Amino acid sequence: MSDFVVHPSAICESTQVGRGTRISAFAHVLPGACIGADCTIGDHVLIENDVVIGDRATIRPGAQLLDGIRLGDDVVVGPNATFANGVPANGPKTLGELPPTLVADHASIGGGATLDRGITVGRNARIGAGAVVTTSVPANAIVHGNPAVIKGYVDAIRPQSPLSPTVTGEAMDLVGGARLVHLTRADDLRGSLAASELTRDLPFVPKRFFVVYRVPSAEARGEHAHRACHQFLICLAGSVVVLVDDGTERAQVVLDNPGIGLYMPPMVWSTQYAHSPDAILAVLASDPYDSNDYVREYDEFLSLRRGDATTDASATPPTGAAS
Amino acid sequence: MSDFVVHPSAICESTQVGRGTRISAFAHVLPGACIGADCTIGDHVLIENDVVIGDRATIRPGAQLLDGIRLGDDVVVGPNATFANGVPANGPKTLGELPPTLVADHASIGGGATLDRGITVGRNARIGAGAVVTTSVPANAIVHGNPAVIKGYVDAIRPQSPLSPTVTGEAMDLVGGARLVHLTRADDLRGSLAASELTRDLPFVPKRFFVVYRVPSAEARGEHAHRACHQFLICLAGSVVVLVDDGTERAQVVLDNPGIGLYMPPMVWSTQYAHSPDAILAVLASDPYDSNDYVREYDEFLSLRRGDATTDASATPPTGAAS
Amino acid sequence: MSDFVVHPSAICESTQVGRGTRISAFAHVLPGACIGADCTIGDHVLIENDVVIGDRATIRPGAQLLDGIRLGDDVVVGPNATFANGVPANGPKTLGELPPTLVADHASIGGGATLDRGITVGRNARIGAGAVVTTSVPANAIVHGNPAVIKGYVDAIRPQSPLSPTVTGEAMDLVGGARLVHLTRADDLRGSLAASELTRDLPFVPKRFFVVYRVPSAEARGEHAHRACHQFLICLAGSVVVLVDDGTERAQVVLDNPGIGLYMPPMVWSTQYAHSPDAILAVLASDPYDSNDYVREYDEFLSLRRGDATTDASATPPTGAAS
Amino acid sequence: MSDFVVHPSAICESTQVGRGTRISAFAHVLPGACIGADCTIGDHVLIENDVVIGDRATIRPGAQLLDGIRLGDDVVVGPNATFANGVPANGPKTLGELPPTLVADHASIGGGATLDRGITVGRNARIGAGAVVTTSVPANAIVHGNPAVIKGYVDAIRPQSPLSPTVTGEAMDLVGGARLVHLTRADDLRGSLAASELTRDLPFVPKRFFVVYRVPSAEARGEHAHRACHQFLICLAGSVVVLVDDGTERAQVVLDNPGIGLYMPPMVWSTQYAHSPDAILAVLASDPYDSNDYVREYDEFLSLRRGDATTDASATPPTGAAS
Amino acid sequence: MSDFVVHPSAICESTQVGRGTRISAFAHVLPGACIGADCTIGDHVLIENDVVIGDRATIRPGAQLLDGIRLGDDVVVGPNATFANGVPANGPKTLGELPPTLVADHASIGGGATLDRGITVGRNARIGAGAVVTTSVPANAIVHGNPAVIKGYVDAIRPQSPLSPTVTGEAMDLVGGARLVHLTRADDLRGSLAASELTRDLPFVPKRFFVVYRVPSAEARGEHAHRACHQFLICLAGSVVVLVDDGTERAQVVLDNPGIGLYMPPMVWSTQYAHSPDAILAVLASDPYDSNDYVREYDEFLSLRRGDATTDASATPPTGAAS
Amino acid sequence: MSDFVVHPSAICESTQVGRGTRISAFAHVLPGACIGADCTIGDHVLIENDVVIGDRATIRPGAQLLDGIRLGDDVVVGPNATFANGVPANGPKTLGELPPTLVADHASIGGGATLDRGITVGRNARIGAGAVVTTSVPANAIVHGNPAVIKGYVDAIRPQSPLSPTVTGEAMDLVGGARLVHLTRADDLRGSLAASELTRDLPFVPKRFFVVYRVPSAEARGEHAHRACHQFLICLAGSVVVLVDDGTERAQVVLDNPGIGLYMPPMVWSTQYAHSPDAILAVLASDPYDSNDYVREYDEFLSLRRGDATTDASATPPTGAAS
Repeated sequence: MSDFVVHPSAICESTQVGRGTRISAFAHVLPGACIGADCTIGDHVLIENDVVIGDRATIRPGAQLLDGIRLGDDVVVGPNATFANGVPANGPKTLGELPPTLVADHASIGGGATLDRGITVGRNARIGAGAVVTTSVPANAIVHGNPAVIKGYVDAIRPQSPLSPTVTGEAMDLVGGARLVHLTRADDLRGSLAASELTRDLPFVPKRFFVVYRVPSAEARGEHAHRACHQFLICLAGSVVVLVDDGTERAQVVLDNPGIGLYMPPMVWSTQYAHSPDAILAVLASDPYDSNDYVREYDEFLSLRRGDATTDASATPPTGAAS
Repeated sequence: MSDFVVHPSAICESTQVGRGTRISAFAHVLPGACIGADCTIGDHVLIENDVVIGDRATIRPGAQLLDGIRLGDDVVVGPNATFANGVPANGPKTLGELPPTLVADHASIGGGATLDRGITVGRNARIGAGAVVTTSVPANAIVHGNPAVIKGYVDAIRPQSPLSPTVTGEAMDLVGGARLVHLTRADDLRGSLAASELTRDLPFVPKRFFVVYRVPSAEARGEHAHRACHQFLICLAGSVVVLVDDGTERAQVVLDNPGIGLYMPPMVWSTQYAHSPDAILAVLASDPYDSNDYVREYDEFLSLRRGDATTDASATPPTGAAS
Repeated sequence: MSDFVVHPSAICESTQVGRGTRISAFAHVLPGACIGADCTIGDHVLIENDVVIGDRATIRPGAQLLDGIRLGDDVVVGPNATFANGVPANGPKTLGELPPTLVADHASIGGGATLDRGITVGRNARIGAGAVVTTSVPANAIVHGNPAVIKGYVDAIRPQSPLSPTVTGEAMDLVGGARLVHLTRADDLRGSLAASELTRDLPFVPKRFFVVYRVPSAEARGEHAHRACHQFLICLAGSVVVLVDDGTERAQVVLDNPGIGLYMPPMVWSTQYAHSPDAILAVLASDPYDSNDYVREYDEFLSLRRGDATTDASATPPTGAAS
Repeated sequence: MSDFVVHPSAICESTQVGRGTRISAFAHVLPGACIGADCTIGDHVLIENDVVIGDRATIRPGAQLLDGIRLGDDVVVGPNATFANGVPANGPKTLGELPPTLVADHASIGGGATLDRGITVGRNARIGAGAVVTTSVPANAIVHGNPAVIKGYVDAIRPQSPLSPTVTGEAMDLVGGARLVHLTRADDLRGSLAASELTRDLPFVPKRFFVVYRVPSAEARGEHAHRACHQFLICLAGSVVVLVDDGTERAQVVLDNPGIGLYMPPMVWSTQYAHSPDAILAVLASDPYDSNDYVREYDEFLSLRRGDATTDASATPPTGAAS
Repeated sequence: MSDFVVHPSAICESTQVGRGTRISAFAHVLPGACIGADCTIGDHVLIENDVVIGDRATIRPGAQLLDGIRLGDDVVVGPNATFANGVPANGPKTLGELPPTLVADHASIGGGATLDRGITVGRNARIGAGAVVTTSVPANAIVHGNPAVIKGYVDAIRPQSPLSPTVTGEAMDLVGGARLVHLTRADDLRGSLAASELTRDLPFVPKRFFVVYRVPSAEARGEHAHRACHQFLICLAGSVVVLVDDGTERAQVVLDNPGIGLYMPPMVWSTQYAHSPDAILAVLASDPYDSNDYVREYDEFLSLRRGDATTDASATPPTGAAS
Repeated sequence: MSDFVVHPSAICESTQVGRGTRISAFAHVLPGACIGADCTIGDHVLIENDVVIGDRATIRPGAQLLDGIRLGDDVVVGPNATFANGVPANGPKTLGELPPTLVADHASIGGGATLDRGITVGRNARIGAGAVVTTSVPANAIVHGNPAVIKGYVDAIRPQSPLSPTVTGEAMDLVGGARLVHLTRADDLRGSLAASELTRDLPFVPKRFFVVYRVPSAEARGEHAHRACHQFLICLAGSVVVLVDDGTERAQVVLDNPGIGLYMPPMVWSTQYAHSPDAILAVLASDPYDSNDYVREYDEFLSLRRGDATTDASATPPTGAAS
């Protein structure tokens, strides 16, 4: 076609290439590949047949996109980034049984990073340069290292230290109605006590109490919103970082002492990560466990926040005991 | 007088000695001393003027009872046991400002033990041989060491290990309506979760949540009953021993993992002790903090359990933030 | 030649390319390269002169095979995998002094992985995506991380937990005559005791006792078989994983308490890895140290197990104190 | 009687007092007491009826000997030392069920020490001043503290530090044929190795291997001799003190690294104590376990060393798994 | 004599008893004892021949003062306190070789306390009830426990926390010219730095640098003054308590971080105690080591501070390497 | 131009390429690139417009040099090495605000390594294969890992273990006048003491004392020379590696106990790295802090050592408290 540009040294065998896309020197696009509009395909890039790329994506030089990759709009793939596509040692017998690797809109993958086959990179996430990604990455998360772990979230508000001695007994609003609550404390030689008068501090009556502990530091937990359930989180030992996201803004708080609680209203997305080895997170909830109350897909969460009529909550299958 | 017996080598200068009491060789009772009936005063014992001893007490040889000591009925004082009566280094300037040392009915003090001036030993408590007692001892407690710490309680029921794998999700009755509740647990590679459905597991709606932690291992906490408040205790890290006492029977349980909760109804006396350095005890309570709800004196507690009409709860002064 | 296929954009200067091999777009094969039959050479691959590749190998796009590489049959090299070929900082002065990098038959190298120059990757080993391999990799080993460490072995049998309380005092056969032996234990308040009656538990009389400790967790030890010597291994502190391999089957056991011993007959290949920092491994051996008793090359071991007449044990040079 | 001396202020109601014994001021001996010859009974001492004291004992002022005490010859009881004689909290219901407290010949009890009812103090043992003794004390042991733990042995030889760099690969004779052996060591970047060529280092062929670990620091273990069995002890982690006693001399060595072994021939009494929390002691023995091989009573051991004809080894009842 | 009072039941065989002294019931004073004026000797006290007691001393009931004890003026000995006088296990063969036990003026010994033979209790020191004292106690020190360790000093000034953020770069005067100096600190992500400009912070040029570490927590070190040498102490790890005493006043400071130095001028007495297990104390000194510079006896120190002409410094014998 | 060589399949759009440079198959040089003489540009290499390369550089196959890179003379870039050039998550908004990535003369970058945008790699440094470099690298340093940390220095002399028992009390010369000094030590039951008689051990009178501690193990400190100041370093806890460099030779020593000091004369460059978590480094210096005394740029240091007339020390701006 005449509305995309191929360097004379490149080979483009596909006709499914969007308007305004440029394909650089020595790149090779196989016939089955499907590329959106206004993309930049760098030098020495290979795009195999079973590859779909959205609009405005940038594939920097040396990246190799083998079969089984789906990239959303505005994705950036760094130079020499690698999509591993062998069958894992403990995985299925053939590649055909593996799901494709998905990179959602606006995510970016650093130069020299490596992604295991079959993982999902969430919307707007950032994979650091040289990271080796072995598990899926939540929306907006920033990951680094080998193996890669979450180091933070893009554009998350980080409130002033919640331990400020000038804010005793006060609540601090975060986003989406979530707030930090300073508990009443009494410390003396006989020990320490931190207390919350529930009818004063919380807008709900607790019907469930649970504790999450012994979480490996590389794990993220939570990663869901509740449709109706309120929660109150207190980190009683160690520390954990909690991301609070109302679909528009994000805030990131470190819970690291029993004197602070985090109130989470319904329909706020949360993720807990960077658990210290001794972290113990106690949670009071307004409702007994109900798997239908969980929104587990971030895209569904965004739709619900926007008031999309098409979302059918009842379509979420039950998934057993969960946190 | 003719109704008590004094060894010819002993010197008894008091006339306030009860019927049937025997005073052994080389013992010396000063004129102001007041001794009950049927006591045994051993060889080489000195009883100074400002001393009061109940009925049926046994003072074994070599014990020296200096001014400022009050012993109840049926108390046993071991051989060479010592009631220190110097003014403490950081205490008041004169002995007169110090309260007397009180040993309640049925308590026993081991041979060679030493008690600091001004402490109280509770009803039926047992001080181990050679112990050095520097703080007051609760009723029924057994203490040992230098300084002495609580090692157990007299006649306490110790239920079979609450961790038995054959009792999952079940409750185990203790005494006075208190019971152990096995929480729902889920352990997997991503961490562990222990949960309680409050409306199922508890006969109350929680209105207060508090956490007790960093308790020095030599401290006992609790040591009270509630008039109306229910509580639910979960030890989230480390371990703590809890004594539950309904005034008639006692049970002693070790809380050492988040999978077990201890339900405490009103009017059950409890004491927590032997906290490990990392112990964290979370408590859900049925009522906001109210100092009038606390019964802080064990004797008052016993009277209330017996239904004594004369106890006036409103006489208990409020004492601020408490656990 | 007519029996292999070269993409029009590729440059193949070698004639030593096997039948059925396909060379993809923008690949470049230098004249001295030697490539077997039925290989797939991906886009943007460079194969320099001093490179030998066996049959049925797959070189995925972006991999660069520089001088000094030997790949066996059925090897897979992932996309953008890198064979570093600089002279190491503490190595010889020139590349010519370095041995080539060897990748044995059926081994696979993950996408984005990096291998130091001069290492050997054993038969059937698997290098994880993004791994940085700095030491040689044993046959069948699975390695990950930077630096890469052994995480397991391909197709190794993992027996049920050797700590099962239902198997006391019993032996559990592994492979090749090796077996786990549960030692006699006695635990009481005075401590614990684990005992092995050697004449009952072992088919040899020990003549040597040694202890291996302070092994960095990234190290593998052992990696040999004995021609005649029996051994009995007990991990007295910490933990270590032992691979036992009779040339046909493999089993992998975790030694993590003094109550379990691992008996190893002659002519069983073993490797110890994943030592905890405090691991202490005690070994009883049937013979004094004799360097000629060691089979240090896995290929020689396989030959000996198959009864190959051509192996000359006396050809193994002595190598001093070893474990 | 005319052959012992009673101070005019003292009261001696017993006639069973040996020749040459002196009873000091304000002392009181009840009619049933039995006291040997040449004893010194200090001021303010009480000796009740059910007390037996050997010859040449010294009871210093203020000590109170209540019913249920047996003291051997040449025993010294320090000033104000206390024999507690209450019924222990977890013990039998009445004193009559408790065994008497035994103090063997030549033992001494420090001033102000306290001994629990029913324990045994071995021949020549020394109880430190102020110690609170809650378990029996071996012969020759020196104990201190509250509760008292073994701190050493009377007259034990303490060889120069076995870690002296000038004594590598050498053996060091102790007593009774026991000796320390320095093992061959090799340390390199991969870890450390300590090896013993058993045929070179030991005069026996090991037939048993066992490990002792997790011994609380307050415990003593061993406390026996073997009739025929040789042993070789190596402390692989932490540290432990070993007493070696041939009936005439004693030596005391600290085992605290895997580079040193302790060879113990038959008919040498040994005790291990002061284990560090992480101590792990490995033992090679010349014979399978045989309960008849153990000499468990120190007095029998001394008889056997002296060649007494009357000792009947077969009279020792078997006692199950032991160390 | 007519100027002191002896209870009719007591036996006083000595004529060396001061005016106004009272001897209570059943007490026994042997002929060689020497007792000052205005003392109180309690019931059941024994005072043997080789005992010297100053004026205004109080010996409470049941204490036994055996041969080899020297008590100063105004000393208080608590009830049943014990002066052990056996020969220590590792000590000389006969009591005659042991120095007497010395208790200096104004010291007090708690009820039930035990003191080893031959120790010295400094002027105004306080031994806690039930303490077991195994080493000498410095002047003014308060000790508790078994074995007893220093817990503080009588009337010591405890300055406000030296870590106050409002006092950066400042010095804080203590007593006798000693002062705390806040070092210059710089903390950033690369680590922390604490610096002292010696020409600014110190009035001396250091000529010696030494480090004290691995001090058992029960030990006190220092316990001397320097005639001419200045010192500067910094605790680089762990913590230590330092007592500073100019002969008139005392101050007690906790050194627990490298940002604080303690300047000690000459002729200030200091003691370091309560070392944490990891405490490392670095010292800069103004002079090379000179044993003649040390004042090791507190009484000599007091004399020198008062300007007594009679003190002969050259009489202090050199004692080798010291701190 | 005619004096450099371009493979027929390569595309060279720049004319700023030096004599003797060779450009290999499928390489692509954009018009703005500037390349020195005698370089080797490997297969599949892309060199974008804003790139400057010195003489004799080697760019091995698959490396992608995007805009914003400056390479010095004799630089080696390994195969598939990646210069990440995205905007960091917490960085500026546009690439234009980022400084270029600088690689100084003679540095080498391992195969598969990844460098973050904007860092500097010092002269002669070596980036290990697969390293992920997130901070700048000092001259001569060798770095490895993800993230990369210093593991050593090129050609550094490593003296025999300074703990050798045969070199007590001796000094050991390193380079440039620096030397290790063994301190005088005294260890006894009360603890350990390490002392340096400064007038004997050091050629300077200390005027400054400072302590460096809590340095994260990934950090290097020091990295400067002093014009006139002498220093003496002692590591009192933990361990640290110190590089000493006189501009011609380098030596590397581990300081890990208080018994060893490192004397550093003026005009010797030093760097400290690989601090253990508990490392505490004490330093005595000959002069008060003076920022003008610091030489902070290694190139300036080399010039000063060579005696270059053009270096103007006074041009170094003061930079506050430093080490």
